Amino acid sequence: MADRDAGASGLDGHIDLVRMSGRLEQLFALGSPPHATRPGFSRDEQAAFDLAAWWMAEAGLDVETDSFGNLFGRVRGTRPELAEVWTGSHLDTVPAGGRFDGALGVVAGIEAVTALAHAGGDSRTTAVVSFRDEEGWRFGGGTFGSRGVCGRVGSDELDSRDRDGVTLRAALHELGLRAPPATEPSPLPGAFVELHIEQGPVLAASGHAVGCVTAIVGMVGGELVIEGRAGHAGTTPMDHRADAVTAAAYVITVLTRAAGQIPDAVATVGAVEVEPGASNVIASQAVLSLDLRARDDAGLDALVRTLEETIAEAAERTGCRCQLRGLWRQRPIATSPEIRAAIVDGADSCRESIRPISSGALHDAAVLAEAGVPTGMIFVRSNADGASHTPEEDTDPGAIVAATRLLARTLLTLATSWT
Amino acid sequence: MADRDAGASGLDGHIDLVRMSGRLEQLFALGSPPHATRPGFSRDEQAAFDLAAWWMAEAGLDVETDSFGNLFGRVRGTRPELAEVWTGSHLDTVPAGGRFDGALGVVAGIEAVTALAHAGGDSRTTAVVSFRDEEGWRFGGGTFGSRGVCGRVGSDELDSRDRDGVTLRAALHELGLRAPPATEPSPLPGAFVELHIEQGPVLAASGHAVGCVTAIVGMVGGELVIEGRAGHAGTTPMDHRADAVTAAAYVITVLTRAAGQIPDAVATVGAVEVEPGASNVIASQAVLSLDLRARDDAGLDALVRTLEETIAEAAERTGCRCQLRGLWRQRPIATSPEIRAAIVDGADSCRESIRPISSGALHDAAVLAEAGVPTGMIFVRSNADGASHTPEEDTDPGAIVAATRLLARTLLTLATSWT
Repeated sequence: MADRDAGASGLDGHIDLVRMSGRLEQLFALGSPPHATRPGFSRDEQAAFDLAAWWMAEAGLDVETDSFGNLFGRVRGTRPELAEVWTGSHLDTVPAGGRFDGALGVVAGIEAVTALAHAGGDSRTTAVVSFRDEEGWRFGGGTFGSRGVCGRVGSDELDSRDRDGVTLRAALHELGLRAPPATEPSPLPGAFVELHIEQGPVLAASGHAVGCVTAIVGMVGGELVIEGRAGHAGTTPMDHRADAVTAAAYVITVLTRAAGQIPDAVATVGAVEVEPGASNVIASQAVLSLDLRARDDAGLDALVRTLEETIAEAAERTGCRCQLRGLWRQRPIATSPEIRAAIVDGADSCRESIRPISSGALHDAAVLAEAGVPTGMIFVRSNADGASHTPEEDTDPGAIVAATRLLARTLLTLATSWT
Repeated sequence: MADRDAGASGLDGHIDLVRMSGRLEQLFALGSPPHATRPGFSRDEQAAFDLAAWWMAEAGLDVETDSFGNLFGRVRGTRPELAEVWTGSHLDTVPAGGRFDGALGVVAGIEAVTALAHAGGDSRTTAVVSFRDEEGWRFGGGTFGSRGVCGRVGSDELDSRDRDGVTLRAALHELGLRAPPATEPSPLPGAFVELHIEQGPVLAASGHAVGCVTAIVGMVGGELVIEGRAGHAGTTPMDHRADAVTAAAYVITVLTRAAGQIPDAVATVGAVEVEPGASNVIASQAVLSLDLRARDDAGLDALVRTLEETIAEAAERTGCRCQLRGLWRQRPIATSPEIRAAIVDGADSCRESIRPISSGALHDAAVLAEAGVPTGMIFVRSNADGASHTPEEDTDPGAIVAATRLLARTLLTLATSWT
């Protein structure tokens, strides 16, 4: 134990806040207009991946890109026959996103894995990974890269199109990626630890810099397509209309009200596309994005039931045709008790108080956990009342350093003593 | 009377259904993608104006374009000191519009005015006019050309931008039009008759080919801008949100329900723009188009009052900021009793049964009427349950011929005996 603590505190000297802050600013500047707009498989996401690959190479890591475009920086262990230990996150963002969501996990991961390389002599290979297209708003999927690693990307998904009609397949080709993805996924790691900002107010309120994630909410995503009937806005009486916008408004109103009544559940319609979209034409179509989350399957089931009942009512009231499209479900998951223990031990060794916390956001970690990889997550305090997915996203330097030190210690434990 | 009837029936021989149908198809083919998508001041609207100018010149009319881009084809009368008699409509369309809205009034107008030229000897100058940008969905105004003629276009309106950020001023320049509009509008006509499809089911239901418009509804147009707060769709509890989409849904639901309870009133939100528009980000902004119509000022006032109350409630319930932008009002108007009489006499002389009808759509005719021009409108039967602003728009050849003959007779009356 004394030895390990000595090794652990040796890691800290390789963690450089100034370097990390500079890298986060460089990433934030990517994506225009405006900053931090890096859709999956865009040139701006690619620019972020190119930067990260450069930083990994500079740190002496073995750099590799898989057939889904995920980027790996490895430190080879002394026993290559053992499953690897991974950390990492993603480098894409929502439109006009923040400095920390995803990016912090990659930047801190490079720092922690590099610190391990300097310490040397670990039995397992450790890697920092940047997954592709976690946010998924461009093609409607999300956690693309981590699902790819876990063999959960179907070839029909590559036919999804963005708003400009570009297919995911074409976007992959454009970046020189070997799409369609190889049928033989790379071996899964023996452990995965994702460091991520909390994106909520809990840690800041309780005065903790870091949290140990116990569970990740379940989520149902997809689209609602409402088909109405175009018509003249002046000459079509209200009771002769099949107005897709009116039907959409009804569904949004009922669904968000219902979500407010289920504990820890949320429902969001963040994207609305209306056709033909002219002020004096009754809408013939409305396409709504759907994002339903709950901490357990019962809550998720209740949300889906409300959604299905509401669209049936909307169809009856408005004469529109309502259809769910591309509905997918990510089950609520629990993190690995062993990895949670490694994180809590790491916090002890850092003399950092740590709080158990559940995640309202979906993460690549949930995908790996569902595939059977023992998984943990370190949450880092979000300030500004937990603002996230906006440029107001704020995490203070003290919390960044504390979390990165904790990550390095956790990886050291897993790389040396993990069975 | 015998003489006039002889002159009137002589007009019919110059009205050629095959030529008119061919011209309507040529116009329908303009605007891609798809057909009949001709925004105001676009290349496709201009292509329609170029065709119409060619048809006017071919028919021997004096062709002229004013500083707003409106196109005139004149037959000079024997007494040029008298105010002119105009007919016409517009050549722009909504996105993916139909064959007849606007286009029929211009094509029939060319036919009728040309027939008058062949008859010869009218005291007043008659003109067929195609107004610019009647639909107004590109820059948010509408009836631009007719308002220009009536001195109702302010120079600040030229700074309006379309979705791509192009100003109206730049769009005018692009087409070689002398924007900003000249400060001296051309003299208004002494009478204006617009022939237009009904865009509703009334005439078809009562078995009439034509209707004589008694009144045109009033309208309030503009936008509602809702400012919410962006946030993560997973980590922001429902009761901590300021979701612009939820606020928009509330306003749409209440407003459309209220419109259904006011006789002959309608309310339409045809365009919805949401920012940032990602499935996993709570919307920070929603911009709704507003189109409220009623047959009288009391109904219009009731709609506006409901709108104002509802946005105040939406702001209170959701924590969003709601603001009306660019609200404009077109008052309900009555057509000229003298011109209505000329139309009814013309129908008698054609042995065509005619029905009094009010217009739920706004037209260039309403703008001229509000400016004090004695105005009438001939409605032509719409089939397909009055479908309009879609490619399903349908008016049968028999109704087209009947309406054009009636228009020519009405213009003849106005050009010879109008005081």
